[in-house]
Amino acid sequence: MPKKTILQKFFEPSSVAVIGASTRPGKVGHDILRNMLSSGFEGAVYPVNPRAAEILGVKCYPSVSEINGPVDLAVVVVPAPVVVPVVEECGAKGVEAAVVISAGFKEAGPEGVERERQLAETAHRLGIRVIGPNCLGVMATGNGLNTTFAVGFPKRGTVSLMSQSGALATAIIDWSIQHGVGYSKFVSFGNGVDVGVVDLLRAWEDDPETTVIVGYVEGLPNGPEFMDVARRVCAKKPVVVMKSGSTQAGARAVSSHTGSLAGSEQAYEAAFLQSGVIRAHSMEELFDLAVAFAYQQVPRGARVGIVTNAGGPGIMATDAVERADLELAGLDPSTVATLHTRLPEAANFYNPVDVLGDAEADRYTFGAETLLADPNVDAVVAVVTPQAMTEPHETAKGLARAASASDKPVLSCFMGGQAMAEAMEYLNSRQVPNYLFPERAVQALAAMVGYGRWREEPPDDPPSFPFDEQAVRPIFARARAEGRVNLGEIEAREVLRAYHIKVPESRVAETAEQAEKHASEIGFPVVMKIISPDILHKSDIGGVRVGIRDRQQAIDAYDLMMLRVRRYAPNAALRGVAVQQMIQGGREVIIGSTRDPQFGPLVMFGLGGIYVEVLNDVSFRVAPFGERHARRMIEEIRSAPLLHGARGESPCDIDAIVHSLLVVSQMVTDLPEIVEMDVNPLRVGDPGAGVVALDARITIAEE
Amino acid sequence: MPKKTILQKFFEPSSVAVIGASTRPGKVGHDILRNMLSSGFEGAVYPVNPRAAEILGVKCYPSVSEINGPVDLAVVVVPAPVVVPVVEECGAKGVEAAVVISAGFKEAGPEGVERERQLAETAHRLGIRVIGPNCLGVMATGNGLNTTFAVGFPKRGTVSLMSQSGALATAIIDWSIQHGVGYSKFVSFGNGVDVGVVDLLRAWEDDPETTVIVGYVEGLPNGPEFMDVARRVCAKKPVVVMKSGSTQAGARAVSSHTGSLAGSEQAYEAAFLQSGVIRAHSMEELFDLAVAFAYQQVPRGARVGIVTNAGGPGIMATDAVERADLELAGLDPSTVATLHTRLPEAANFYNPVDVLGDAEADRYTFGAETLLADPNVDAVVAVVTPQAMTEPHETAKGLARAASASDKPVLSCFMGGQAMAEAMEYLNSRQVPNYLFPERAVQALAAMVGYGRWREEPPDDPPSFPFDEQAVRPIFARARAEGRVNLGEIEAREVLRAYHIKVPESRVAETAEQAEKHASEIGFPVVMKIISPDILHKSDIGGVRVGIRDRQQAIDAYDLMMLRVRRYAPNAALRGVAVQQMIQGGREVIIGSTRDPQFGPLVMFGLGGIYVEVLNDVSFRVAPFGERHARRMIEEIRSAPLLHGARGESPCDIDAIVHSLLVVSQMVTDLPEIVEMDVNPLRVGDPGAGVVALDARITIAEE
Repeated sequence: MPKKTILQKFFEPSSVAVIGASTRPGKVGHDILRNMLSSGFEGAVYPVNPRAAEILGVKCYPSVSEINGPVDLAVVVVPAPVVVPVVEECGAKGVEAAVVISAGFKEAGPEGVERERQLAETAHRLGIRVIGPNCLGVMATGNGLNTTFAVGFPKRGTVSLMSQSGALATAIIDWSIQHGVGYSKFVSFGNGVDVGVVDLLRAWEDDPETTVIVGYVEGLPNGPEFMDVARRVCAKKPVVVMKSGSTQAGARAVSSHTGSLAGSEQAYEAAFLQSGVIRAHSMEELFDLAVAFAYQQVPRGARVGIVTNAGGPGIMATDAVERADLELAGLDPSTVATLHTRLPEAANFYNPVDVLGDAEADRYTFGAETLLADPNVDAVVAVVTPQAMTEPHETAKGLARAASASDKPVLSCFMGGQAMAEAMEYLNSRQVPNYLFPERAVQALAAMVGYGRWREEPPDDPPSFPFDEQAVRPIFARARAEGRVNLGEIEAREVLRAYHIKVPESRVAETAEQAEKHASEIGFPVVMKIISPDILHKSDIGGVRVGIRDRQQAIDAYDLMMLRVRRYAPNAALRGVAVQQMIQGGREVIIGSTRDPQFGPLVMFGLGGIYVEVLNDVSFRVAPFGERHARRMIEEIRSAPLLHGARGESPCDIDAIVHSLLVVSQMVTDLPEIVEMDVNPLRVGDPGAGVVALDARITIAEE
Repeated sequence: MPKKTILQKFFEPSSVAVIGASTRPGKVGHDILRNMLSSGFEGAVYPVNPRAAEILGVKCYPSVSEINGPVDLAVVVVPAPVVVPVVEECGAKGVEAAVVISAGFKEAGPEGVERERQLAETAHRLGIRVIGPNCLGVMATGNGLNTTFAVGFPKRGTVSLMSQSGALATAIIDWSIQHGVGYSKFVSFGNGVDVGVVDLLRAWEDDPETTVIVGYVEGLPNGPEFMDVARRVCAKKPVVVMKSGSTQAGARAVSSHTGSLAGSEQAYEAAFLQSGVIRAHSMEELFDLAVAFAYQQVPRGARVGIVTNAGGPGIMATDAVERADLELAGLDPSTVATLHTRLPEAANFYNPVDVLGDAEADRYTFGAETLLADPNVDAVVAVVTPQAMTEPHETAKGLARAASASDKPVLSCFMGGQAMAEAMEYLNSRQVPNYLFPERAVQALAAMVGYGRWREEPPDDPPSFPFDEQAVRPIFARARAEGRVNLGEIEAREVLRAYHIKVPESRVAETAEQAEKHASEIGFPVVMKIISPDILHKSDIGGVRVGIRDRQQAIDAYDLMMLRVRRYAPNAALRGVAVQQMIQGGREVIIGSTRDPQFGPLVMFGLGGIYVEVLNDVSFRVAPFGERHARRMIEEIRSAPLLHGARGESPCDIDAIVHSLLVVSQMVTDLPEIVEMDVNPLRVGDPGAGVVALDARITIAEE
């Protein structure tokens, strides 16, 4: 017995009131009632309309409170100004769930925004869960529940779909009915004043009638919660989401490289990747993936067998397999031998297996069955073109039989139109997903393989490193006390040091003599840098000197620096000169972080200099993440081979970079005050030699 | 009156003989005759079969020679071994065109290869043009000609299609009939023993019944001829090609960076780009583009107006416009004012124009018409979802009316299934291409915009630079005489010098004293390099010294080099030491060339070092090309901003790089002996300072 979810009243109500039911066909309040009555729902349906005695032959009630017996679900279709009073009445009646179809809320200007706020407040106060407003409503095919005014009702299936857009939802239903795609639950949640993506994920997580969850969203209000729940749900069933809407970096001030490269798009991409959500990039892909996951098993590996009755589409499928980073299975010799027993000599006995254009259903089915039996094959793509001897319907029957006898996925591509229509319909009825073109079948399979890999991975728990919180808090406090959001270089290094990220030895000199003394104690060569919170680009005014080799150079550098800074930035507050150990050799990388409005801290990795600034060769993850994602961040950048020692250079200490990424991931999670940071450059030595953070920039939130 | 092409007998025969016509339904020879008789062809049709008196009510002839009257076209469906004798007989009869349907040729092993050779030879000798063998044949909807055994005949239209794969052709016909897509001519040319892609391009170039040419190919036998003809045809009408099949670099020996990075895929991509051919990357895209080009005008610019009755799909279309590098049109204020006169307040009056979900046909049409009238809009994407008040059919009528009244293209996206079916059919009948998803409509539009831009471009004729042929030939001759294919460094520099590419001053020293003298005359610093055809990696054995600053260093370098080379490569032939001017500063780029089996010389450009070797950041063009493509090669690489002075560096002499690319393009065209070359590095100075080729490697073909 599945556990009841909090949203159960939306999907399995015993009684439904349609408040605002109308006597006039064509009105939304009429069409919804008609759908409620005609979709197979066996519970009680109560039209509510004070000016009608009955509608569509059903007794009408003047108000929800006058209904005898309990009401599990209220469908609200009254004009916007009346919605809140109606919800109040529902509360008095003891209704716990309401679908508010009515528009005229957040989407309709300031008055609507206020109305939506009131609706939220009222519903919360009364303990009523709300789907909507400004939505199409809910369908549940298992019990014929249909609170929408859409034309038609999809057949029963195992896909559950949520959509932020009612119009897309309508188009999806219409398309699905035509193509015989079945659904379990269907929710258009519109403005999402209460129930949203995360609630629906939770509701469908353990729903035995849902095997794949599909969603169209334009935004997510609570990124971290979404990731938590999605990660859990994806371990149980695939979640396919299309996210549309342009990036919205907007007017956020950007003070770091990371900030300028990180957009909402990068955050969504990383969040979906880390939580196992399969991202569809178009509506077509959304459908393609939904059907693949709903109909077929997730393959155990990436080795694809292709069976075809024609060369050309076989090549197209092969090309697509290569492009999708799948593997063309190398057939077992016994498979080739078996194929030889029944295929004509001119056939191709190696992958892709071409059973030839004159293959009737038996020969084609034999080819498919033989491929499926091969231990080197994880999944089969079956291509059929309508040639002279082709028996499309019989071939579809044979293929479906082979598919259902195997635990490996079969995706088919019966190409053509009228001649293939009956076969396509049959395949759909037998849960073999069919695609018009080989590329789409292969892309869908690639998504299944990717999901299968994700599901097999052990958890990537973020490690926890000790850090010195006592050292960090006063730095933030002092900056805030001074009205600053940018930490000084020394402060930023202190923060890194609190997390045990190595920084070069550095001392502050307030006289030339001190500079000389510090330098000789640290050991030459040294770097000297002016310390001033007011000077952002120190080197532009001669505030940075590298490669200082002896005592005299240290003294000269100090004096010159003071001279020039006083000349070019006479009003800058000076805190002396930092004398710093000069780290030579190694390679420079950058680790940064920014705070995404949806998902919180986003960590970036790239190679220093032009690789980040010109080539935008960077990778992102939402913090916190574990070692696996840290390693992948490094491997994802195009210039990764340089870190492994491409072109005869010596390889770098990759483990130390991984460790640094994990530390930064923890730091920006521990310290929500940090809104942007760059560790740039982080100098990486040979394997085992570790890393040193040569410079860092940290921006904290205003209090 | 259009000019008659050489292939006219294939498309407009007055009389057709079906040689191998069969009495038995289901046999190919029967089905073809049935199709010939039932597709509307009004010329004479002669079945040829020695064992039948009549077939399908038509008098049968024992052989083609016994037919009274002329035969314009022979359709040959006899068993493979009989094909050549039949063609002989056709020759005697005076037939000038034959479609050979029969299989059993090149695709069927060595015997078939020989048979195909005989067919080619026979046809050539008799002056008979052949389509096939192993093909589906020809359709021409204008006169009901149908030599195929396919089920069904597409309606008349203006798309002409060629396919190398018969199976795909069948699938395409089947699909097209179902979706009401019309064709003008249709050729499946199978093995292509004679008529191929280039002949068909020529045949359809001036065909007034063809407005768009679409092709599926797996390879092209003659790349340069294809490019020439395609470039000319594309200037008249769009050519959309899907090329499938993996890269086939195969076992070719590769001795240069360019060679290792250039594959057949890069050559096809460059060749299509340079000749204006629009490349489709999937069958779906091929259809999408074919219909767009067939139905609508090419837009004059990239500014897209979007009209929608729903927010979600409007966002999806907007996203797609951005991704496709199109421009969301900024509407003229008068357009916004006009929209205000009839749209409700809640509508969106800016692009994308949202006429709202309750828009009936009139309001939607008004929105579309208003957008089309805006001078800032070059094309309109019209999105319609099936909502409660939507009138799909009436909306389609209004939209089609608006589209046909405008000279701007309209691509529609009526989303959904059954509720939209009638509207979709209507749109198709009125030449408004409809796509199920906004992304596909926008992608098709992007291809139209790209084609429009290509067509507007002036010719990019390759310039012709003077060069010293007398200096080059002896170098090649000497290398060949010595059995070498790799030119020595000095020889390679001589070749560059013959094309007036600047190389550093360099002299050969055979003693330490000569080295000292040359160095002091050239001026310090100098570079010294061992000269030996046997030593490929000179620096590995101490054979290269840079930064030699005075006479003593030159003497020491010479002696050390000789010592070490004798120690590590005792058997290497030594020709002395090159003393070379040392060029400092500037940036290093690489220009290379390789010879593609299909397209001939392919020129590559990239930044030196890791940019080429690790990041594969390179661009390609088929030589010869003109200045426009040379500039684009530079701009296409991701690291191009570095050449323009990104990150505060000084910009480079781009014009000098362009010039060098053009010279190399000419060089590899002039000198087919060169099979691979790298100019690496080419040192580029500040703007106006020019370039110097510091090193070059040239491989010539074996004789």
